[in-house]
This record gives sequence, structure tokens and C-alpha cells, in this order.
Amino acid sequence: MDVNDTDPADTTGSGATRSSMWGGRFAAGPAAIMERINASIDFDKRLYRQDIEGSKAHCRMLIATGIIDRADGEAILTGLDQVLQEIVEGRFVFKTALEDIHMNVESRLREIIGPAAGRLHTARSRNDQVATDFKLWTRDAIDDLDGAVAGLQAALIAQAETHADVVMPGFTHLQCAQPVTFGHHMLAYVEMLGRDRGRLRDARARLNECPLGSAALAGTGFPIDRAMTAADLGFDRPTANSLDAVSDRDFAIELMAAASLCVVHLSRLAEELVIWTSAQFRFVTLSDRYTTGSSIMPQKRNPDAAELIRAKTGRVVGHLTGLLMVMKGLPLAYSKDMQEDKEPVFETVDTLGLCLAAMTGMVQDLQVNRDRLAAAAGAGFSTATDIADWLVREHGVPFRDAHHITGAIVKLAEDKGVGLEDLSLADLQAVEPRITDDLRLDAAGSAAARTSLGGAAPDRVRAACVEARRRFLDGESPA
Amino acid sequence: MDVNDTDPADTTGSGATRSSMWGGRFAAGPAAIMERINASIDFDKRLYRQDIEGSKAHCRMLIATGIIDRADGEAILTGLDQVLQEIVEGRFVFKTALEDIHMNVESRLREIIGPAAGRLHTARSRNDQVATDFKLWTRDAIDDLDGAVAGLQAALIAQAETHADVVMPGFTHLQCAQPVTFGHHMLAYVEMLGRDRGRLRDARARLNECPLGSAALAGTGFPIDRAMTAADLGFDRPTANSLDAVSDRDFAIELMAAASLCVVHLSRLAEELVIWTSAQFRFVTLSDRYTTGSSIMPQKRNPDAAELIRAKTGRVVGHLTGLLMVMKGLPLAYSKDMQEDKEPVFETVDTLGLCLAAMTGMVQDLQVNRDRLAAAAGAGFSTATDIADWLVREHGVPFRDAHHITGAIVKLAEDKGVGLEDLSLADLQAVEPRITDDLRLDAAGSAAARTSLGGAAPDRVRAACVEARRRFLDGESPA
Amino acid sequence: MDVNDTDPADTTGSGATRSSMWGGRFAAGPAAIMERINASIDFDKRLYRQDIEGSKAHCRMLIATGIIDRADGEAILTGLDQVLQEIVEGRFVFKTALEDIHMNVESRLREIIGPAAGRLHTARSRNDQVATDFKLWTRDAIDDLDGAVAGLQAALIAQAETHADVVMPGFTHLQCAQPVTFGHHMLAYVEMLGRDRGRLRDARARLNECPLGSAALAGTGFPIDRAMTAADLGFDRPTANSLDAVSDRDFAIELMAAASLCVVHLSRLAEELVIWTSAQFRFVTLSDRYTTGSSIMPQKRNPDAAELIRAKTGRVVGHLTGLLMVMKGLPLAYSKDMQEDKEPVFETVDTLGLCLAAMTGMVQDLQVNRDRLAAAAGAGFSTATDIADWLVREHGVPFRDAHHITGAIVKLAEDKGVGLEDLSLADLQAVEPRITDDLRLDAAGSAAARTSLGGAAPDRVRAACVEARRRFLDGESPA
Amino acid sequence: MDVNDTDPADTTGSGATRSSMWGGRFAAGPAAIMERINASIDFDKRLYRQDIEGSKAHCRMLIATGIIDRADGEAILTGLDQVLQEIVEGRFVFKTALEDIHMNVESRLREIIGPAAGRLHTARSRNDQVATDFKLWTRDAIDDLDGAVAGLQAALIAQAETHADVVMPGFTHLQCAQPVTFGHHMLAYVEMLGRDRGRLRDARARLNECPLGSAALAGTGFPIDRAMTAADLGFDRPTANSLDAVSDRDFAIELMAAASLCVVHLSRLAEELVIWTSAQFRFVTLSDRYTTGSSIMPQKRNPDAAELIRAKTGRVVGHLTGLLMVMKGLPLAYSKDMQEDKEPVFETVDTLGLCLAAMTGMVQDLQVNRDRLAAAAGAGFSTATDIADWLVREHGVPFRDAHHITGAIVKLAEDKGVGLEDLSLADLQAVEPRITDDLRLDAAGSAAARTSLGGAAPDRVRAACVEARRRFLDGESPA
Repeated sequence: MDVNDTDPADTTGSGATRSSMWGGRFAAGPAAIMERINASIDFDKRLYRQDIEGSKAHCRMLIATGIIDRADGEAILTGLDQVLQEIVEGRFVFKTALEDIHMNVESRLREIIGPAAGRLHTARSRNDQVATDFKLWTRDAIDDLDGAVAGLQAALIAQAETHADVVMPGFTHLQCAQPVTFGHHMLAYVEMLGRDRGRLRDARARLNECPLGSAALAGTGFPIDRAMTAADLGFDRPTANSLDAVSDRDFAIELMAAASLCVVHLSRLAEELVIWTSAQFRFVTLSDRYTTGSSIMPQKRNPDAAELIRAKTGRVVGHLTGLLMVMKGLPLAYSKDMQEDKEPVFETVDTLGLCLAAMTGMVQDLQVNRDRLAAAAGAGFSTATDIADWLVREHGVPFRDAHHITGAIVKLAEDKGVGLEDLSLADLQAVEPRITDDLRLDAAGSAAARTSLGGAAPDRVRAACVEARRRFLDGESPA
Repeated sequence: MDVNDTDPADTTGSGATRSSMWGGRFAAGPAAIMERINASIDFDKRLYRQDIEGSKAHCRMLIATGIIDRADGEAILTGLDQVLQEIVEGRFVFKTALEDIHMNVESRLREIIGPAAGRLHTARSRNDQVATDFKLWTRDAIDDLDGAVAGLQAALIAQAETHADVVMPGFTHLQCAQPVTFGHHMLAYVEMLGRDRGRLRDARARLNECPLGSAALAGTGFPIDRAMTAADLGFDRPTANSLDAVSDRDFAIELMAAASLCVVHLSRLAEELVIWTSAQFRFVTLSDRYTTGSSIMPQKRNPDAAELIRAKTGRVVGHLTGLLMVMKGLPLAYSKDMQEDKEPVFETVDTLGLCLAAMTGMVQDLQVNRDRLAAAAGAGFSTATDIADWLVREHGVPFRDAHHITGAIVKLAEDKGVGLEDLSLADLQAVEPRITDDLRLDAAGSAAARTSLGGAAPDRVRAACVEARRRFLDGESPA
Repeated sequence: MDVNDTDPADTTGSGATRSSMWGGRFAAGPAAIMERINASIDFDKRLYRQDIEGSKAHCRMLIATGIIDRADGEAILTGLDQVLQEIVEGRFVFKTALEDIHMNVESRLREIIGPAAGRLHTARSRNDQVATDFKLWTRDAIDDLDGAVAGLQAALIAQAETHADVVMPGFTHLQCAQPVTFGHHMLAYVEMLGRDRGRLRDARARLNECPLGSAALAGTGFPIDRAMTAADLGFDRPTANSLDAVSDRDFAIELMAAASLCVVHLSRLAEELVIWTSAQFRFVTLSDRYTTGSSIMPQKRNPDAAELIRAKTGRVVGHLTGLLMVMKGLPLAYSKDMQEDKEPVFETVDTLGLCLAAMTGMVQDLQVNRDRLAAAAGAGFSTATDIADWLVREHGVPFRDAHHITGAIVKLAEDKGVGLEDLSLADLQAVEPRITDDLRLDAAGSAAARTSLGGAAPDRVRAACVEARRRFLDGESPA
Repeated sequence: MDVNDTDPADTTGSGATRSSMWGGRFAAGPAAIMERINASIDFDKRLYRQDIEGSKAHCRMLIATGIIDRADGEAILTGLDQVLQEIVEGRFVFKTALEDIHMNVESRLREIIGPAAGRLHTARSRNDQVATDFKLWTRDAIDDLDGAVAGLQAALIAQAETHADVVMPGFTHLQCAQPVTFGHHMLAYVEMLGRDRGRLRDARARLNECPLGSAALAGTGFPIDRAMTAADLGFDRPTANSLDAVSDRDFAIELMAAASLCVVHLSRLAEELVIWTSAQFRFVTLSDRYTTGSSIMPQKRNPDAAELIRAKTGRVVGHLTGLLMVMKGLPLAYSKDMQEDKEPVFETVDTLGLCLAAMTGMVQDLQVNRDRLAAAAGAGFSTATDIADWLVREHGVPFRDAHHITGAIVKLAEDKGVGLEDLSLADLQAVEPRITDDLRLDAAGSAAARTSLGGAAPDRVRAACVEARRRFLDGESPA
């Protein structure tokens, strides 16, 4: 709140002020506070590569259509390359007084090539320019995220392959339900992540229309060739309506919605890692690389990375909520409110990328405690369903009746304080005379029997791994 | 908060209680408060058609695979048809003590056909059953919403065709920017809604995998044919992992995210209608059918429907946020938390459907005040850009310089308190000697000149209407 | 989406239609769809008691100030009492065509007492009327919730008293950190709930200004006595600005924010109950009253109530987000958007009340497994900090150095696969020669030593229980 | 996503690595990615002043209780002052390998004073330390925000005083409802902001309990004096439960909830400024200081600051949603998830502070266009209610009947295309014979007649300004 009110132009080391950019009508210099709330250069400079790429495509089109002459056009193209190089090499001085990335680039271009720089902005506006830049950036981010998700899938599939036959308790309500296999559990996440990638790809396809040439909001009278710039920038086609093109931030929100679902998936695995590494579970061991110690309790091995991934769900969903709120009730076309789109998208992409990288590392390093899992798999009467299924299969008992009989057997074991496998045949027959010693109850056998498509049996898991590689990883080069 | 604690079984008029459903182990009857928090029948009865459809497909498969015998199977199929008919005809008594739609249907089936009813639940669980029911319902809802969005597109395109050449101010920052056409403005929403439909269709394609046969969480040892039930219910394929199949609510959230973006679009049009019907704008007139009066101010004609559509954005986005929060950090597989999925989805679909219907009605009835729009289109120096463009085009002035010159002209008009079109040639030449009387400034001409692809010119709008009908309405039968 | 468009007046069984309420200007009857989106009677009828209470206070004031004559006023008061009785007794027919609770009550009043009913609305509007009704309802809801929270505190304190000396592991990062006591853990929630009650009370005090007399938005020229109605309805004072009074929904949002924090607290305890009742933890046992069985796994004892409480956090926070979004950017004064306030508040209050009742029941019934807790308390090297503290206290070792020494001892125990208490003195002295057999390591002793104010020692817990009763329960009559 | 995996210790220029901080048990250095997700120093360095303040209070208490000796204690105090000075003067090198502000400060302290630095952490943990730091920071932020809100109230009251008798249309549903005064409208916001300040103050009072001495989670066996540190740091008392003290982030969420309501209030005024500065309204003029121009439309004067304030509502509410989601379902006591608390709170405080400053500037600079307001105040039949009220008052007509009569008069004026004041007495009497020429209809008179408490009449507004100064500004020194 240490706001002061002096003219920012004095402190930016630049003769160029915003008012001189807008033309001659503004007498008073903008207040410092206005600069702080209004300028976007602190974050939109991240769009520099896309901004220059877009300007070059626009310039090539202006040359091709004869809207500007070739000499000016070539000078602009060369100048833009120089600006890009200066930024890449860290030699470019970003000026807050120039507000945004567009003005910073154009202003520097003018210093390099002189007044011809002023021809670049013919037949466009910052409104279509920023929409184009931001779409290009988002498209790249989607591709990066898709690769990162594939990398996590690869790590999960590798664990599934290694532990296809490791029996563990399957939980519902965090209660032991039925034995499953560790590989099967890993592949559940591969499916979730596969849907996440589908959403990313759908979002990419939908955004891939080029706003450039929509100008401020109404299109332009210059004989531009929008198909040319669209193709040049890798878009499938130009946008169909100029008002929509400069008012649309669907692509940002759609990415954030996809990211929200993805980080919710990660939060579920993270929660499981936190629970599984508790002293009471000890199902898996995280590597030292992803755990931390304590300043006061030297014995602690805290699953910090998992906790942070779980927590970052709040951040990602919060940004989604926030941008939906920004866009609610905005009249057409561009409103300055829409400048609030970039930071949440940048942070969402960074956060999700980081969570994916950390989760991939944790999964790669994961040590699976087979013995603990096996012991747990048989506890909690987890094979009870097998009794009911046996009665249905062998004696044609209606399932509901078999279910009631099994309930009575579980109660008997509970009262005796033993597991189901510890009940004698006599015990079982006291409840249900039709039971014979053909009925076998063990966790590994129970899991192995779940051979239905998509089921937990080791053979199913191995086949599913092959299939998952084919569906998700072939032709990819994930991390 | 008038909770009492008596056994609900006494008050439901049914001998069947939940504890008798779960088997013989539970001694104490559940508390009334537990029934209130736990039972879902009040809302999930809405799934009755999908539940019975899914049970019939499951039963046909159990017959085909020989898991149950044909006679029992036929009895079940006939019995389920009777249950369906009873529900449709309002003769079915839903019982809270039976918790949910699944138990209500099965319990009635048992009353109708006897113990054979107990065979229906072989090789399945409520976990895969509810996932299947809810996916079927969601799929239907998506199709309904897609039709409703198409209906609104049709209304907008019709208005666009009628008002392709009606000039109006194009706004940015709610300030007059450049003249556009009313048809062009309507078509901007057609684009947004087109993306909404794309998201709905993508969500539909992604959800269309059948969970049935995943059983509780691990699959089953019965020799079921999941491909058969999937095909029977119109799914593209069975789900690939049983743990995922019963833990997944992505499809609900993806629908809610698509609905959130759609209602945000509606909120923007709603906001415009509220502003446009103010005494200060009077751009359009809403029909009496969608406005209301005041109990104290008889002159009022309030745009209530538009306001409510705008407001309902909060409800839809709130539900999205809520379900993401529910799913955050849930370990696999099914947890009871997931029962919180249905009410927000039902209400989201109902709310969006109602908003679409109300907006379609308002758009159909909309009276456009051509004269007010035309007068406003020319105000606010909205043709200033045309001066700059003219200087660029006719005299090769770099755009930035042309922009500065135009700024000075606007300032002159502002100081004189007149519009740009009221400045004399001498006035203009005092600022910029190169200006001649070839420079014409009028709103209609300005709009007509915006002939770039996707631009505001009437001819472009008419062509865009043809194209929009082809892209969005052909082969459809929207409302 | 089965919307039909007929005049609803035909189907409501009432000659009164909305258009006749607004005066004579509306020719066309409102569409059915408009009725569905616009009418609030389905939910705002819940305000009937407050509406009639407010009308009676307004009427008494109109009599006292001579704005209406006594005979008319008495007739209105008697008539309103009759309306109230009809509603309470279930004999009142609510009509959708009359839109809302205000019109339903007034219309019935007119049937009962004739044209004098038309005098009741003098010097007020539905805008100040609904604000008053809703504040009165919210005030009552706050009082109810405060009592329910107190009831949960009572249950927690009772458990804390009973288990003041039951040693259990204290967790950070779900890793065993240091031994604490079960009573201490329960009291942590008593503190959270105490803050929740503080927020509820602050919200109550802040809302307690009476909007009545603000009329539509501007106040009135009638010589009303706002202090009289405010006092009559138990408000501290009249609101200070009429525009604000009819535009304000802060009180609804503030309640929802308080409810959100409260349900987050409940979700934390619910998560602990889910984890603690897992087969791996078995720290506590929930009663049958708050658990359920499984349709396929008869052995399951699922903590459904705890899971549902945890999940309902999403619903409550979603409503908060939603109403904030509704109010964002609304110009003054009343807009119809604000009608979206009631359903989320009603549902928030109902949901939180239900969650509190269920949690109170679960806590009351909770069986604490002392032996499991005691065994777990000593595991995981949980007394490591005691070594460090002993070195600091007995030998003046700087804490950081003591921490390093302890880390080496933990590593030794870990390598040997034993607990700290199983290390011999020789083992300990091999790491740190200054250690003597005065150093005792056991969980109960460790917990008993935490005697600092607010610490986990049993004596501290007992004293804290006494204090908690004094702070939170004295003078109350919680459930 | 340019993550590399090398040991960060090599690049931080420090021999101290995290693993050496936690003791000797960790062999592998943490991965770079872990550092990126885990380290908080990038943002929590902002707590440096509070961290050192808290450490000094803790140290003074350790000396006073004899837990450390005076010489060591004095060295620590002096060393901490030096660390503070180095940070203030920008000479301090923050090291990511040291994770957080606590370790950075302590590590530097050790460099300065040697091993005695290791005694500072006696009887505390990072868990109670960070809770204390963050509460102190939040308390300061609340005080700053309270002052900033008071500053905006002062600006609004000043405008209200100047324009107490400027008549303007009062809107409901953005339709002209009844004439009010500009001063009255400004004071509505003063009330909202007054409630915001109340919420801030309540949050401050509730957070003002000191967590220090809760140690990791269980309290400590050292004979600390928590009352002393609490008093030293300006807290009202120590927290009552150590588990709660380190698990609690209510204070952060409560601040964010208060901030959300405040920024929603700002968004409403911002929306009004955007609408009021449109060419169609022109009710007010914003200064050049808070508007911007356009790169393509030189005539534009865009209300950017107002739009950005409106938009930033999304950011603030998104953060609230996010942190509620983080805390949902977290078991006690401290989890690393809670590290996600700081960035959203910092950004919320910064954002709200900036919005308040910008809004204060806009309000101070606001030019009110009296003539436009006066003309608009009389339009839209805004005095219709006065007809109804006149009939009630002068002729005892029941209000509902008067309302019907007025509706007919409005319809007549509408049909004639004139205002109410343009109807002749004959016109009026044709509808209602009891009307005489005593009935006067003009906007100024209508507003002046609204003399009820809290009403829009100029005299009421002037009195309300006096009262508002007394309630909100006396004894304060707002900006």
C-alpha cells in the first residue's frame, strides 16, 4: 500500500509515456496507481514470442496484399527479429509506462527502424493482437501439458507392469472391500489421465481459429487476407465473427476446466500416497527425494510433495472460478476486465506442470511394500463376496440370499475375532450346510478370479498395460 | 432443524428396512437423522428410467451368458417393465427406508416376481449400477441441451437475417468504438453457442463408455459379456478399468464446466438486454411476456427474465466449484461422497435448460429500435478510425501517425461540442492539410466498409447467416 | 425441458393473475416459461412467518402514526393472524400466478377482509419487505445454528472428559509426530467451533438493522416511524440508507461464509473418522446408527455419514461462490438477480444443520479403542523429540545440535528395525555419550510432560474441559 | 516446464542444504523439482519482519524463564536485529535451499553469532512459528485495509456533501424507478464499506490469540510463559489448544471472505461508473488519470480502472474458494497443504488495497454532470409513485387501488408519447376524477419529499453525512 502518485514516466527511464502512445488528447499524466492497476507488462511480457510471431505473420500478409510496401515490410520483419533476439538474450528493457508487450515491442521497433514501424499496426488492433498472442501461447501450453500427462501415464504403466500381480486391498469408503492388484490400481489413474488428455486435445482443436484481422471489434476495410495469416500461424481457419473474436476467452476457461479435472485426479493419487505412507498403512515408501524432515521431530519423513499437489487443487480451481466470474455479464466486445485472464492461466499451467512433474517423479521412485499389501489384502473379510458368488455359482442361490448368508458368516467370524479363512468347515456349515471344502478363500485367489474385462486379475492387468501403451504412448515421446 | 430420532422404518409404511437389505448383521435401526443425510431416493428417483433400462440390459446379458436361467431372466424383464409402468403412471410408492432408486426398484420387483428378483444383482453392484444410470441420464441431458442451444442459435440467426443492415454502435469498454450492425452482434453469440455445443458433444463422446460389469470395484469372476451390455445401452465400448469406472465422475464435472461457459455466454447477452432496455439506451424493447411490473411503481417494465438468467450464472458455477471440491482428494474407489454428484447436475441441467428457453423466447420477441440504434451509431466520434484508415490508405501515412492526427481532430470536435461529421473541411484541414472532401464520415458507410472476413458489413453478415445455418442448423430440428 | 407456453392463470385455480397485481398496463399474459423462471413462491413461502410478522409490525406503525385508520388496521392485523393460522395448519393454497409470498399473503388477506387489505402496502414496497423478511429468517437460522454448534461442542467436551488421559499419536503430515491425548484432540475441534459461533454472532449483530420503511429504494414521504417497526421486530435500529437497505445481501453472504468455515471444520473431523475407522487404523468405532452396509460386500461397515459430511463442504462452498458471483457488478438498487439469494441460503442452513446433527450423533456414539491408540502412540519414533528436549534440558545442548544427535539415534533404530524404547543404553551412548538411564522414552510419559498452557498433558486437558464448559456452554441449553 | 534435476545446493552459493538442516538421516539431496514445489522462501520472505519480531519475543521469554541463559539470549537478540537490518537494507541473500524464511533467518543468525543460535528454537517449532508470523502479518494487513476503506468512505462522504441536492434517477432493474439524490447514492456505498470495516475488525479480534508455544502440535515440557510472549506481541491471550493452534487457518479465510464482500461492493460501484460514463448515460465524467485511450480509436476514453476493479472480484473470490478447498478434509494437525495459504492472502490484500486506492482516486476526481442527471431524473415516469401516494394521502384511496389508477395514467402518457408532467389536468381527471391541480409532479420535488429516516431527501442526506463522519471517520486519520 506504499502507493505514490508521481508520474511514472519519470522513473521508467523512457521518454515515451502512455499518453504519447494514445495520441495528443490526454493532458494529465496517468497516476502511479493507475499504472499499477492498468499495466500488464509485468505478466504479458511472457507472450513476447507469440506477439512477435503474430506481428511477423501480419506483416507478411500486409506485404502480400500490397497494404504496405515491401521495403517497409522487410524492415519491419528484420526489426522484429532483432527485438526477439534482444528479449531472448535478456538485453531488452521492458517499460511499464508502455503498458503491455505490444507497445513495448512496437516502441522498440520504432527505435530500430524508424517511422515505418508505425505501418505495422495497419488493419489490426491490440484487441485482435492480444487474442491471437494468447491463443498461440495457450496452444503451446496445451501441447506441453499433454506431453507431461503422457509422461505420468508412462510412469504409472511401468509401475503397473512391475506390480501386475501384487495383491492389495481394494477399498470403498476406505474400508477393505475386495482384493485387487497394485497394477490395476495404477491403471485406474492412467484412464483418468487419458480423459484429461482428451479434454486438452479437444480444447486445442476448438481454440484453433485465428482472431487476427478482427481489428478492434468490427473487422476492417483494408483488403486483408485472413486465411493467409491463419495458415501462417498454424490455425485451422480464421474466426467467423469479429465481435466474438475479440470478446472470447472460452479457450482460457476451457483449459482451466481441463486443468481443474486433471489436478483433482492428481489430488486423489496424492491423498492415497499420504495415507499409504502413514505408519498405520505402510503400503508404499516414497523416496527421500520427495519427502522432507522436521525441524523438531528428526524421525519424520513427510510426504510434502504429495500434500502440496493435493493442496494445489485449490489454486487451480480457484483460478477457474475467478475467470468465470470475470467473464460473467460482460457486454461485448472487448472490456478491460478481460486483461485479468492471463495471470490465472499462466499460473494454472505452471502449477499443473509442476504437479505433473512432481507426481511423475514420485511414481517413478515409488517402492511398493508387497508384504504389507498382501497381509492387508486378506484382512477385513475382504473375500466375503467370494462366498456369496460361490453360493450363486455352485448352488444357484439367488444373489440376495447368498448375500444374507454371507453376512451371517462374517458376523460369526467377527464374533470369534478371526478372519474368514480361519473359520472351520464346520463353522461355515453351521450357517449354510451347502458349503463344502471346495470353497477357498484367499486374497490372491480372489483377485486372480476377477477376470472380467477391466477387472483386477493379474492377466487382465498385463493385457491392459499392453493396451494402455498402444492407446496412450505409441508414437509419443513422453518424458 | 426439527430433527427427531425415531426409527424411520416405523413411518415409511414398509416392512422392508435398510438393515434388512444389507444382511443380518446390523442390530440397531438407523437413526432418522442418518436416513435424512444418507438416503438419496428423493433425488435419484429421477434416474428410474435409466435404472430399469440398465437392469434390463444386464439381465439380457445374464441370460445370454447362461449366468441366470432364461425363465428367471424373463420374469425379471417382465417384472421390470411393470415397475417402469407403475412409476410412469404415478402408482409407484418410493420408500425412503429403501435408500435409493436401485433398492426401491429391486424391492418392488421382488414383490412382483418373488425370490428370482434376487438373481438380478448377480455380477454387479450398486457402484457400477449407479455409474451406468447416471451416465445414461447425463447423455440424454446433453442431447436435450444441445437441442436447446441450437434453438437459441436459430432465434439469433433469424434476428441477424432480419437486421443484417441495421447500424448500431459497436462498444468496447461500453464506450462507442466503431459502428457495427445488429445482425453482426447477434451472430457473435451464435459463435459462442457453437463452441458450447462442441463442448457438449465432446463431453458426450468421452463419457460414452459403459461402467456396467465393473461390479463393486474389482470386476467379477462371473463370465459376463461387457461388450454386449455396452452395445445394448448405446455405449461405444466398456470402460477399461473397473476401479476407475466406479470412481469416475469426470462426465458430471465436464458437463457442468460446459454448462458454466454456456451460462456465462447467456449472462453477457442478458447484461446487454438489461442495459439496452434502460431509458438511457432504449436500443431494443422486450415483450411484455418477459418483463414484469412493480408493486409500487406502475410505470416499470423490468427485464426480470434477463436479470434472472444473468444471476443464474452464480448457481451453475457454484455447482461446478462444489463438485470439484467434493472429488478433491478422494481415494479410490467409490466413496459415499460421490452421492453428492446428482443434485448439482440435475439442477445445472434444469437451470441451463430454463435459461436457454427464456433467452430464446426473449430473442424471438425482441423489437429492435432502428432509429435509436442509428442515432447512437454515429455518436461518440465512432467514425474516428475511418479518418485514420483513410489517411493510411489515401496518403500512405503510417498508421501510428494517422492515429495521432485523428486524435487531434477528435479533440477539436470535442472542444467545439460537435460530432466529427459536423466539422467543416477547413476544420479538418487545419489539423491535417492532406484531408480532402473525399473523406466521408457516416456510421452506415463505416459499417458497410468493414468487409473483411468476419467483419460487420451487411453483406458479410448476410453471408455469415447462410454459413451459420449450414454449420449449426442443417439436419437439426431445433425448437 | 417440457415447457409449454399457455397462460398459467388458467391452471392455478385463481382468478388473480400477476398482470392484475401490477396494474392495468400489461395486455399479454406472461408466458409459462416466464412463470417458471420468475416465480419465487416455491421457495420463498418458507418466509411466511417472517412476512406476516413484518406486515403486522408495519401495520401497527401505520395505525400509530395515523397513516391508516385504526379500524382498517385492526382488520388487517386480525386477517393476517388468520392467514398465518391457515398456513400453519396446511390449509393455505399457494398460487404460482401470485409470484411470491408477499402477494400470496396480501391476496388472501383481501379475500378475508376486503379492500382495506390494499392499505397495508402503504409506505412500503416488496423491496424493503423481502429484505426485512429475509433478515428475520436469517437471524432465526443463525440462532438455530449457534445452538446446534454448541450441541456438538458439548458432545466433544464430554468425549474429552472421558478420554482426557487416553494417549494417541499426534500427527503432522499424517505421520506420527508426538504422543498426544484423545481428549486434547477433541478439544481442538471445540476451539474451531467456538470461532464458528463467534462468526455467527458477529454476523447476527451486523445484520440486525431494519430495512422496513426504505420502500422501493428512496424512502417515502409518509410520516412513518422506522424506529418503532425496528424495535417491534427486535432489530437494534433502522438501516441508515434506503438504497443500501434494498440492495444489500451482505447478511446472506456473511452467513454463508461462516457456514463454509464451519463445514470445513466438520470435514476435517469427518476425514479423521474415515481414516480412523479404516482396518489399518481402527482407532475408533462408529456406531451402527451412522454406518451402512454394502449390497455386495456383507462385511462392510461404511462410515457413510462421515463421508457425506465431508462431501457437503462442496455444496456449502459452492453456494457461497455462487451468491458472490450473483452480486458481483450489480448496479443499485434492487435487481431481480437478488432473488437468487434465498435458495442457496436455505440449503446452506439446512445442510449445515444436518451435518451438525449427524456429527453430534457420531461423536456421542463414538467408541474409542484405547489399546490401539496406545500401541500406535509409541510407534513411529514418536518420542524422538523427547530425546532432543532431554539433551537441551539436562546437558544444555543447543536445540539444533540436540536435533542432529536425535536424528542419528532415530537412524540407528530404523536400521535395527526397532523402536526407540528398544535401544539399549549402550546403543544410545554410542551416538551420544552424555545420555544416561535417566532418559525415559514412553508415549504416556511424553504426553504427560506436555504441560505447557494449551498442551496435551491429561491434567491440562481436564482443566481445559472445565474452561471450555465455562466459555462455551454455561448459560446455554445446547442439545 | 524446463525442470532439471540437479542438486540445488550447488547453485545456491551456500554450504547449508536442507538435508543438513533436518539432521543426518537423509542421504540423497532433494531433487530440483522438489525444491520448486516445496520451497516457500520466494513468498514467505515477505514475513521477515514478523518472523524476527516473533523470534525476539520468544527469546526474551526463554531468558526470563531461565530456559536459556542471558548471555546466549542477548547474543540472539542482537543477532536478530542485525539480520533484520540486513534484510531492510537489501543486503540479505535469501537461499532457496534453506526453504523458508525461518531457516533463512536462523541460518544467518548462526553465521553471525555461532552455535548459540541453535538455542533459539528451543520449545518451539516451525509450526507454531509460522502460525504466529502469519497472524501478525494478517493483523497488520487488516489494519492497513481498514484505513484504506476509511479513505474511500471519506471520498464518498465528500462527494455526498457536495451533491446532497443533485437529483438523479434512482434505478431498480436499471429502469428509472424514483428520483433520488446523488449524495444519497454515494452514502449507500458508505454503509456497505462500514459493514466491511466491521467484518475486518471482527476478524482482527478473533485472530488475536497467540499460537507461539504450541510447538510442533502438542505443546512442550519446557516451563515456557505463553502469556508473556502473547502480551509481548500484542495478542489478547495465548491460543487454548496446541493442536488447533498449528492447524488453524481460519484467520486467513475470514480475511479473504471479508475481502470478497468488500471487492463485490467495489465491483458494484465500478459497474455503475462504467454505465454512467457511457455515451448514452453521461451521468459522470472520470478524470483522465483513471481512463485510457485506444491504439486504434483515438476518441476513446475508456474507464479501465473501473473495469479492472470490477474484474478483480474474480481473483479475490477465486482465492477464497481455493483456500477453502485446500483446508477441506485436512486431518489434524499441520499438513504441508497449509503452505498454500500465504500467496492467496498476500495477493488478496495487495489486490484489495490497490482496488481501494484506485476507487478512492476515481471518486475524488469524479465530475458529476448535474444537468444530465436532472434531465434523466424526470424521465421514465419516475414520479408515478407520487401520484399513487398523493391519492392515498389526500383521498384515502387504498394503496393497491391507487396503484391501479396510476398504472392507467402511465399507460395514457405512454400512449401519448409524453411524460407524466406533460399530461393536462383533464387528461388526469379522465382517468381519476379526484385528481386536482394540487398534485405536482417533478423530480426534484419528489426526491425532496422522501424525508423518512434513511431517505433520499437532500436534508436527510446532509444529516446522514454528518452522522457518517461521526460513525466512520472521527478519531481516524484516513488517507
